[in-house]
Amino acid sequence: MEHVSAKDILGMEKTYRRNLIHCCTGYKSANLVATQSSEGKPYVAVINSIFHMGSNPPMLGFILRPQTIPKKIYKNILETGYFTVNHIHKDMIEQAHQMADNINSENSGFTPTGFEKELLEEFPAPYVKQSALKLGCKYLEKYHIKENNTEIFVAGIEHIYYEAGIQMPDGWLRLDDAGPGTVTLNGLDGYSLPSLLDRFRYAKPGQEITSFFKTVKT
Amino acid sequence: MEHVSAKDILGMEKTYRRNLIHCCTGYKSANLVATQSSEGKPYVAVINSIFHMGSNPPMLGFILRPQTIPKKIYKNILETGYFTVNHIHKDMIEQAHQMADNINSENSGFTPTGFEKELLEEFPAPYVKQSALKLGCKYLEKYHIKENNTEIFVAGIEHIYYEAGIQMPDGWLRLDDAGPGTVTLNGLDGYSLPSLLDRFRYAKPGQEITSFFKTVKT
Repeated sequence: MEHVSAKDILGMEKTYRRNLIHCCTGYKSANLVATQSSEGKPYVAVINSIFHMGSNPPMLGFILRPQTIPKKIYKNILETGYFTVNHIHKDMIEQAHQMADNINSENSGFTPTGFEKELLEEFPAPYVKQSALKLGCKYLEKYHIKENNTEIFVAGIEHIYYEAGIQMPDGWLRLDDAGPGTVTLNGLDGYSLPSLLDRFRYAKPGQEITSFFKTVKT
Repeated sequence: MEHVSAKDILGMEKTYRRNLIHCCTGYKSANLVATQSSEGKPYVAVINSIFHMGSNPPMLGFILRPQTIPKKIYKNILETGYFTVNHIHKDMIEQAHQMADNINSENSGFTPTGFEKELLEEFPAPYVKQSALKLGCKYLEKYHIKENNTEIFVAGIEHIYYEAGIQMPDGWLRLDDAGPGTVTLNGLDGYSLPSLLDRFRYAKPGQEITSFFKTVKT
């Protein structure tokens, strides 16, 4: 096994360190976050840090870094209070990665990449039409993380759109069936396609774990 | 497309809502977090909310919910200041899901599940021997999220252990080659195995996106 310590990490070349550290915590969610300015100009970028914060009320969070933030996302969310989260699917990865580049550029809209803007239910932020699973979110608060000068944005989930066929009777959504499959990120730039191995029921202590698909598999 | 609004979500049966909301933000990281009490008694549980917080200094975060937290994890981290993060691989999912159940039980150690505890470099928290990618972390701070009464724990990454063969020259780790492959979580209980589709370089505005593997693929 290779071993690197905090001292080794701090001494690494910047890109090398960023690649290593972005990979070491495991797979990340892969979403396009779309906003619009107070003048109605749309802006979209890849955000790999969206995380579940709670189900009741439905909430998510994500991190913005002052050094590398998509400044327009930051500004638009604080000005308008709304944004959308759109899953990136297998057939969207090249286009999506062009939006990752938007983080540091002034180029911004949907048009250059071929993604189409979609307005739904008079929600004050655009969705990405190509995405088969998307959320309309309302900004609630930001928390400053003093240890590395980042901001955690916290938002409520106001709308969820998804294909009916991917939902199981207990509410669960099968993400490898969402569109041509929702992807996950390995580091900053490795787009990966997951396949469901199994889904397990919670066992009572001492009981055997059972699969949801056992009757199908055996 | 199905559409559910915040009002619909708040009216859902609890398990249904939890399944839906845990799936809708995309894939999650799948890790075993291991700690020990101040008396040296180990405790391990699945944590699906580990997220990258920054590379310099190397930091990660995760969420603990007062209602459902693994109370021993909370207590041990605050008492000892240290914990480890251990990737869950394809061959570990059934065992790992038994640890998910530990969240609400008093049963805690490694032994009942067959996972083995590993002590490395005199680090004051145990690692999971079966894991091929693991981190030694130092607790830094917790932030109370008032909107849903959760805590975000923030930690520094002090040690990284991984197999040399999974690293590319630019630091990036190929997670589908870590052990028999690192898994990702679809919701709370759907263990999925990703395969790398492609890895892209950042393009300058107006330039075409290029793949790291283009020379291999064509």
